[in-house]
Amino acid sequence: MTDTTAPATIDVLGIGNALVDVLSHGTDELVDELGIVKGSMTLVDEERAKEVYGRTGPGIEMSGGSAANTIVGVASLGGSARYIGKVRDDTLGTVFGHDLRATGVAYDTAAASDGPSTGCCVILVTPDAQRTMHTFLGASVHLGPDDVDAAAIADAKVTYLEGYLFDPPEAQEAFRTAARLAHDAGRVVAATLSDSFCVQRHREAFLDLVEHHVDLLFANEAEILELYGTDSFDEAVAGVRGHGTVAALTRSEKGSVVVTAEEVIEVPAHPVDHVEDTTGAGDLYAAGFLFGWSRDLPLRRCAELGSLAAAEVISHLGARPATSLAELAADLLD
Amino acid sequence: MTDTTAPATIDVLGIGNALVDVLSHGTDELVDELGIVKGSMTLVDEERAKEVYGRTGPGIEMSGGSAANTIVGVASLGGSARYIGKVRDDTLGTVFGHDLRATGVAYDTAAASDGPSTGCCVILVTPDAQRTMHTFLGASVHLGPDDVDAAAIADAKVTYLEGYLFDPPEAQEAFRTAARLAHDAGRVVAATLSDSFCVQRHREAFLDLVEHHVDLLFANEAEILELYGTDSFDEAVAGVRGHGTVAALTRSEKGSVVVTAEEVIEVPAHPVDHVEDTTGAGDLYAAGFLFGWSRDLPLRRCAELGSLAAAEVISHLGARPATSLAELAADLLD
Repeated sequence: MTDTTAPATIDVLGIGNALVDVLSHGTDELVDELGIVKGSMTLVDEERAKEVYGRTGPGIEMSGGSAANTIVGVASLGGSARYIGKVRDDTLGTVFGHDLRATGVAYDTAAASDGPSTGCCVILVTPDAQRTMHTFLGASVHLGPDDVDAAAIADAKVTYLEGYLFDPPEAQEAFRTAARLAHDAGRVVAATLSDSFCVQRHREAFLDLVEHHVDLLFANEAEILELYGTDSFDEAVAGVRGHGTVAALTRSEKGSVVVTAEEVIEVPAHPVDHVEDTTGAGDLYAAGFLFGWSRDLPLRRCAELGSLAAAEVISHLGARPATSLAELAADLLD
Repeated sequence: MTDTTAPATIDVLGIGNALVDVLSHGTDELVDELGIVKGSMTLVDEERAKEVYGRTGPGIEMSGGSAANTIVGVASLGGSARYIGKVRDDTLGTVFGHDLRATGVAYDTAAASDGPSTGCCVILVTPDAQRTMHTFLGASVHLGPDDVDAAAIADAKVTYLEGYLFDPPEAQEAFRTAARLAHDAGRVVAATLSDSFCVQRHREAFLDLVEHHVDLLFANEAEILELYGTDSFDEAVAGVRGHGTVAALTRSEKGSVVVTAEEVIEVPAHPVDHVEDTTGAGDLYAAGFLFGWSRDLPLRRCAELGSLAAAEVISHLGARPATSLAELAADLLD
């Protein structure tokens, strides 16, 4: 960031695949029968999405999308937030836009007027509270560089990008364009690796991003191990240091570790009475961290805010906060 | 019921307006600003539904519809259940059908291929856990007598009809046809008065139904008072007696009262740790009662099952059970 940069009016701008979640409870047997890895995100076409949906129990529909969940968390904490992502001009697209705006998030990406319908994510929640996701990207594949609003990016302290954007080719271009625009404007670029299979699919590109284009990186343990091709968390930590990147690495109930060139800060997980559904845990950790970062709080406090927001979202079904995070976090923000 | 009737293979068949709920939290001030009576159901056109939706917070979409919620409750208790109701062949229509079938409910009413979209109900839940509903009937207005499957009705121990069916004229005809077919087949006709404003709109017709066409009546206190134009619950009880109708009258935290020609049975409400959202309380009371009835349980036990199912549904957001009612009710079904 240069000293000549004008003050930003947006705390965090997020870019991601715009999806509506269909959440239902399922058994471990069903996950096995579907031939998928529990806890993972699998890309499916519309036909397969329908097939999986047909085998799931009664569902609840809620707006989702990884970066969108994060941005809603930032807004719920009281931050100024904006989102870029592509829906179709259909019912679920309307729902997606409504839920963002109703949380106070600015959102004006043009909806597609033809092509595939709004993307959705069929999520099976197993009795162990783990979530397994089938994503039909739908209209989100049409997010492209033209949807990236340069003025908005220049006006945001942090631009936050999800790794899932690397799956649709045009969105990958949007990711790179957004990162370049943010840096050109002297702003911070944050990104999440999203999913270990997503890292597998785009490992070289992600290594390049982490080393050269991202200032603040979010990853869980499986993702960072995958990125550095190691089984050792310490090796992965060593790998991510020294590029000038701050990395916030989440380790489920073991809490999180913030890695900078100078230090490694360990922060415990926030206590949760009952883990109902882990969907959105990483997204909301990023929300808390990014909000703290946008307020120039110390890294430890950023991680504590992340842990708090993650704890709220895993205590109920669904990937977005069910209550005001600003109220929950009042003690940490005094 | 005649002795010559063949054994029924369906416990309960329900007919109602097929709706998808959009649930969100709202303030008392918002209810006031919208100019509506808290706790009521207001019919709105699509434009007004959109206007109300635009003013509500982030929402959760779940299949709803009063009789559909009841039928899902019957299935969740382990009953054999069928539903008749009209959706459009659109996204929410697909969701509605999926959620019924995924609970084990038989459902094969033809979806409309043109006309209004699948109906929806925008539900504001205020901090006192009360729900205030705006219903856009959508495709459900096209439910008509032709959709009433005579063979299915003849095969159901009980046909359960919601009073809300009286709002769309064709559905009113479907209601009368279904009741006649059920009686012709020697089966039981059950109905709910649905809503006190709905009773106001159709009072004379509802009185005729209660006195001549319904064997088992469900109503809450406000509805039965409205039906008999009185402020006295005792007067309303006196009014409903003596037509050969069994009436199950719900009184929120005061429990329920089962009224027959011979007796008045008072059953306490089932204890609830925390009332989150009263949406579906009456629907699920009817589910428990109807399931008990279909199993020839004593009336007191039917009411206890109703109270148990209602207690489950008001302990979380949404109008359908979040857990297996059969497991919850195991002690009452031994």
